[in-house]
Amino acid sequence: MKQYQHPTIDQITLTGILHALSDPVRLNFVRSLDQYATEQRCGAIATPVAKSTMSHHLRVLREAGIIRTRTEGTQCLTSLRLGELDAKFPGVMDSVLKAADRSELTSTP
Amino acid sequence: MKQYQHPTIDQITLTGILHALSDPVRLNFVRSLDQYATEQRCGAIATPVAKSTMSHHLRVLREAGIIRTRTEGTQCLTSLRLGELDAKFPGVMDSVLKAADRSELTSTP
Repeated sequence: MKQYQHPTIDQITLTGILHALSDPVRLNFVRSLDQYATEQRCGAIATPVAKSTMSHHLRVLREAGIIRTRTEGTQCLTSLRLGELDAKFPGVMDSVLKAADRSELTSTP
Repeated sequence: MKQYQHPTIDQITLTGILHALSDPVRLNFVRSLDQYATEQRCGAIATPVAKSTMSHHLRVLREAGIIRTRTEGTQCLTSLRLGELDAKFPGVMDSVLKAADRSELTSTP
C-alpha cells in the first residue's frame, strides 16, 4: 500500500504555499477540492492535463502542505489541510480561494 | 529617462501575484516596502542579494503588478500597488503580508 509523506505543520512555509498555488492547474484543483466538505477519491476531480502531469502537480501540493493523501484499501483519498493552514497563516487560503472564484467569473481563460 | 512598463489592473492575474510573492527575497522586499506609507527610492531598502539579482526580482514584481516604479529627475521611486490589488483580490495581499510577519517572528531563516 502506497504511503504518502506529508510535511508537519512546522515544516510548511508561506512561500511554499504561494508557489504551489501559483500554477493555474493546481489552483483550480484546490478550488474544486474546496467545494467538497469531505475528502475525495483521487481522480474524482476532472483536470485538463495528463495523469502523469497531474501526479506531479499533486506531489507539489502535498509537499507544500496544502493537501493530504491517504490510501484506504485500494482507494486513494485526498483532502485539503485548510484547518491547519488557517491556524498557521490566517486568512491566506480563504482570500486566495475567494479571489480565484472571482477571477474565474470575470475572465475568459 | 528610463520608462517602466506596468500591467493594467485587468492584466494582473492571481497566479502571477502568487508566483511573484513565492520567492523569499521578493516577499521580504514587499514586506519592507509595506512598512513605509509613501514610495521609496530604489535601493533604499536593503536586500541580501546582488544588485543585478535584485533588478530581476524587481522586474518580476513589477510585471506581476505588485509594485510601481517611476523616475523623477535622476531618482527611481518604487511603491506597492496595494489599493489596486485589494480592489481586485480582496484580502490576499493583506493576509499574505500578515502571515509573512508572523512567519518571520516564529522561524529562523
